[in-house]
Amino acid sequence: MIRIGLVGAGRIARVHARTVEAHLNAELVFIADPVEDAVKPLAEKYGVRYSLNPDDVFTDPAVDAVIICSPTPLHVDHILKAAKAGKPALCEKPVAMETETVTQLMAELEGIEHTTMLGFNRRFDPTFARMHKLVDEGVVGKVEQVTIISRDPAAPPKEYIAVSGGIFKDMTIHDFDTARFFLGDITSVYVVGQNLDPELADTGDFDAAVITLTNSDGATATITNSRHCSSGYDQRLEVFGDKATLNGENMRSHQVRVSNGEYTDAKDVYLDFFLERYEEAYAIELNEFFAAIAENRKPATSIEDGAKALRIAEAAEESAHTGKIVYL
Amino acid sequence: MIRIGLVGAGRIARVHARTVEAHLNAELVFIADPVEDAVKPLAEKYGVRYSLNPDDVFTDPAVDAVIICSPTPLHVDHILKAAKAGKPALCEKPVAMETETVTQLMAELEGIEHTTMLGFNRRFDPTFARMHKLVDEGVVGKVEQVTIISRDPAAPPKEYIAVSGGIFKDMTIHDFDTARFFLGDITSVYVVGQNLDPELADTGDFDAAVITLTNSDGATATITNSRHCSSGYDQRLEVFGDKATLNGENMRSHQVRVSNGEYTDAKDVYLDFFLERYEEAYAIELNEFFAAIAENRKPATSIEDGAKALRIAEAAEESAHTGKIVYL
Amino acid sequence: MIRIGLVGAGRIARVHARTVEAHLNAELVFIADPVEDAVKPLAEKYGVRYSLNPDDVFTDPAVDAVIICSPTPLHVDHILKAAKAGKPALCEKPVAMETETVTQLMAELEGIEHTTMLGFNRRFDPTFARMHKLVDEGVVGKVEQVTIISRDPAAPPKEYIAVSGGIFKDMTIHDFDTARFFLGDITSVYVVGQNLDPELADTGDFDAAVITLTNSDGATATITNSRHCSSGYDQRLEVFGDKATLNGENMRSHQVRVSNGEYTDAKDVYLDFFLERYEEAYAIELNEFFAAIAENRKPATSIEDGAKALRIAEAAEESAHTGKIVYL
Amino acid sequence: MIRIGLVGAGRIARVHARTVEAHLNAELVFIADPVEDAVKPLAEKYGVRYSLNPDDVFTDPAVDAVIICSPTPLHVDHILKAAKAGKPALCEKPVAMETETVTQLMAELEGIEHTTMLGFNRRFDPTFARMHKLVDEGVVGKVEQVTIISRDPAAPPKEYIAVSGGIFKDMTIHDFDTARFFLGDITSVYVVGQNLDPELADTGDFDAAVITLTNSDGATATITNSRHCSSGYDQRLEVFGDKATLNGENMRSHQVRVSNGEYTDAKDVYLDFFLERYEEAYAIELNEFFAAIAENRKPATSIEDGAKALRIAEAAEESAHTGKIVYL
Repeated sequence: MIRIGLVGAGRIARVHARTVEAHLNAELVFIADPVEDAVKPLAEKYGVRYSLNPDDVFTDPAVDAVIICSPTPLHVDHILKAAKAGKPALCEKPVAMETETVTQLMAELEGIEHTTMLGFNRRFDPTFARMHKLVDEGVVGKVEQVTIISRDPAAPPKEYIAVSGGIFKDMTIHDFDTARFFLGDITSVYVVGQNLDPELADTGDFDAAVITLTNSDGATATITNSRHCSSGYDQRLEVFGDKATLNGENMRSHQVRVSNGEYTDAKDVYLDFFLERYEEAYAIELNEFFAAIAENRKPATSIEDGAKALRIAEAAEESAHTGKIVYL
Repeated sequence: MIRIGLVGAGRIARVHARTVEAHLNAELVFIADPVEDAVKPLAEKYGVRYSLNPDDVFTDPAVDAVIICSPTPLHVDHILKAAKAGKPALCEKPVAMETETVTQLMAELEGIEHTTMLGFNRRFDPTFARMHKLVDEGVVGKVEQVTIISRDPAAPPKEYIAVSGGIFKDMTIHDFDTARFFLGDITSVYVVGQNLDPELADTGDFDAAVITLTNSDGATATITNSRHCSSGYDQRLEVFGDKATLNGENMRSHQVRVSNGEYTDAKDVYLDFFLERYEEAYAIELNEFFAAIAENRKPATSIEDGAKALRIAEAAEESAHTGKIVYL
Repeated sequence: MIRIGLVGAGRIARVHARTVEAHLNAELVFIADPVEDAVKPLAEKYGVRYSLNPDDVFTDPAVDAVIICSPTPLHVDHILKAAKAGKPALCEKPVAMETETVTQLMAELEGIEHTTMLGFNRRFDPTFARMHKLVDEGVVGKVEQVTIISRDPAAPPKEYIAVSGGIFKDMTIHDFDTARFFLGDITSVYVVGQNLDPELADTGDFDAAVITLTNSDGATATITNSRHCSSGYDQRLEVFGDKATLNGENMRSHQVRVSNGEYTDAKDVYLDFFLERYEEAYAIELNEFFAAIAENRKPATSIEDGAKALRIAEAAEESAHTGKIVYL
Repeated sequence: MIRIGLVGAGRIARVHARTVEAHLNAELVFIADPVEDAVKPLAEKYGVRYSLNPDDVFTDPAVDAVIICSPTPLHVDHILKAAKAGKPALCEKPVAMETETVTQLMAELEGIEHTTMLGFNRRFDPTFARMHKLVDEGVVGKVEQVTIISRDPAAPPKEYIAVSGGIFKDMTIHDFDTARFFLGDITSVYVVGQNLDPELADTGDFDAAVITLTNSDGATATITNSRHCSSGYDQRLEVFGDKATLNGENMRSHQVRVSNGEYTDAKDVYLDFFLERYEEAYAIELNEFFAAIAENRKPATSIEDGAKALRIAEAAEESAHTGKIVYL
């Protein structure tokens, strides 16, 4: 039984708390968050101890491993504290807002034996994971063109956008990781940033983008992002190879098709947002974290993966603003 | 080049005229129909001779083969005349309204060398034909359960229903032939007739029906019929075997899917009715007719097929009215 | 917090145990089953007390409500004991093997205030529940024809079939309830029983069946059952009305479509069997049970529903053996 | 009745000949091609006159309008001759290999009253045309992101590639026109050219490409091309707007879905190549040509459309070789 300490009591922390509780090999024992109104009810719901000082999680001897759901600026500090305390850590993405910060973190971690996993949940989604497995099994042949459609159902509040780090680090970061999942290291980035929603015109951020990536084998990935989509959270992936094409489709909450005098075989709108769409992915991600601890091995996603996705995001930012291809 | 004489100038005759004209190995040369307003413009459109006396088609030396699109009560007479004239004939279904009449016809044809094909167009539909081919190739294994959904877009006028011979001979006759196409000879028939549309309550005919058929191997076919369907002409077929299941889907006039805030991946309504839905089937049916003539062999569908479908229709009528299973 | 006692430690009991444990308003406190090798590990897994005597669950003061997963012959006894003990009960279907037994049970329950829910899980399946809601909302108009395809992935062992009560009480019972869910009370039953699998020829039971039901409005339901299906657990439902048609589709474990040189857009095989296919339905069923307790009201599915489905199953048995329509 | 003269007797000429013959308002009267082995059998098949000198078509008084299917280098000359002869002309794309040549042609045509239509057949495809209509009707809202997947089933012979003008003028030219159909004038082009097929490595041409286009409203189009696709001719289009998303799907020759122990609902491979996939589009294109003649108006596609698509192709070529965005 792995005893889990949770850093943070926000939205994603609550998802992890529920999954830990439902897991047979793990139990939640401690939650820390400076916001008492958030942490107290969550701790009471699960009958566990809590603290307003996140650092307490890392020093508590009853905590075997930690899940870091603190705000992004604290990630580096919390990862280091977990590593130094000898506690395996699962940290939400992104590691940091700047590649430089992550590079420093990696330098500091050198020499410390640690198990740190980064929460790129989509790799664990049953659909995307199955596609990756089919590629590994040779079903697709050589991967030549990856097409990612990734659109949020609606734009977040402007206050969120202001501190989000921009669309590439906030939203596309997941798609960059998906591109790396199928193409390996990326060598060039070209971005057309779009400002389509007049309501968001003054945010200083793009609200949509089309991105072309290449790898050293000459394969490509195109990412089409938008901050809105009338049908919900639009998450599709196509992997085209010389032997087969794979398409990962959107999910709905049921399997009903409606036919009437206007249209036929209409499906429901997509699952609304990431907590629903990737619910199963979050649970499988935790499984991987627990399995890596149990087997004393590196987890499937690392800080390095975070660093590389962040590097692409920075290149995307540069390309979108200069109108030039950025080579990595 | 096969020179075709057309008996009849109605709706289905016009479909055949167009197909003959577009065919490289056949040409339309003669049309006969007592209704001058129908036959004259059709003959002028294709620049061919016409007559108000159908019998002229059978005696015309320039006619190599005939397509019989006369009213059902004249089919037997026209089939016989074509046979006696030594002209291959394609006759629209049904042969007649009563099994007895068809039996007499078959007796009269005995001893006359003739090529007579019956227009069970659905057997030539690319979807149903492909399903049949997959069954023949063993892909499905042993056919165990056939499910036919067959609904018209809207009920015909009451005047038509009054002389139609009833839903089983008018509409289900095609589905009975489809059942025979996949199951061979039918051994039992059970029917629940439905009267669902209040507008049709006084027609003395059912406006919907659910039919269960069996063959001598213990396989089943269920047919679900309705005189109306909000989404158009609903024509689906499932063939379930011990190795695979085949589903034949409805057709639309284009391949657009629409997703919005209410629904996703909605397709267009179905092709509206049989002339559109089975347009390709009619052309392939004619191909088979011309090929049988050229190769001097029996066509794929015979008067016997018509007789057997008609016999099932009569059994269906009996079952629906007595509430009993009828064994053939 | 509702404290749950579980009667039985078999396959379905384990499903309920897991769901109860994951539920925030319920907790598992007691399990009873005479088979120590089954009950002991399950009790230990969840850290709860256990007994080898099922009766202990009904007398235990720490148990607020019971879930009855005992063998069918014990259901009546256990339902009565729960009712007399004043403990709400969720009982797996079927209530009993004979309508007479259920009628006696209902007579004995008269005068006892009790909350008894029957586990017709499919009513709670998100797809079927959504279809029912759309019917309630008038989207479909008048329901005219219901088509149920219900096939198991593979036949159970012959030993199971021998004591199963026959295909209609064991397998079709769920489909009869689905038909009642959409059509209300059933007035006639016609069945073609099939013996298609040579391996099962000596079981004395049908291994497939096609069933036609009617209700007093003249609407129909057809059920197509088979003990095997090459693609997995085939669970589809069509509801046809005068305004719209609804189709409930099969489920897969992921949303990948594969296209290659042989076929395109191929989906995965169906979820293998009922525990996976109806996993969500079981959880929502428990929710309804807990909600009925909390709100002190009748649950959505009752013993009467069980009795009525059983009565149809008996009529089906009779029709299949006599070849006659049975009127209810 | 419009009397048609056909310049050329190759593959696409034969498609047009058949469509003209099946058309009620047009008839084929003359074919010209210097290759006697091609022109003679075609002329005999349709019973029309022929010549080995293409110029004869333009001077023949019995010819009302011409369809130009000559090799690309002759298009300009033939368009001019038709215009000067006062005969409406439908010319296959591309007008020429260089924008400059087309500009000169347009200058020469100035002052000559002429009806010249360019064969961008895809605009007439029922699927793409329907999508355009839905955009026009406001169903999609503001068009924001267009995604075009366009892959050939297999690479043409190297000899063809050598004289094809390169992938952008030969293959992508159609996709550039589709992008213009939905986005209007294009303002920037960025291309990643790919060399994935080792067999084609020495052709000096790309065998795949990913292209990003923008228009002056900030909307984008991405085009993903490949010279091969295992499942056939892959022709898909997505139009994303703020109100709805439209998806144009691939076509198959029938509507059968196969389910077995390995996969479910598998469809057939795509229609193999453009003559089959766009068969209906070619017929509708001719309809538009005949309608424009009858109504004495400009046809839906003009030489200017050809010039603009060609200009984008040249920009694409430049971008692919320089690795820079090209602004138009």
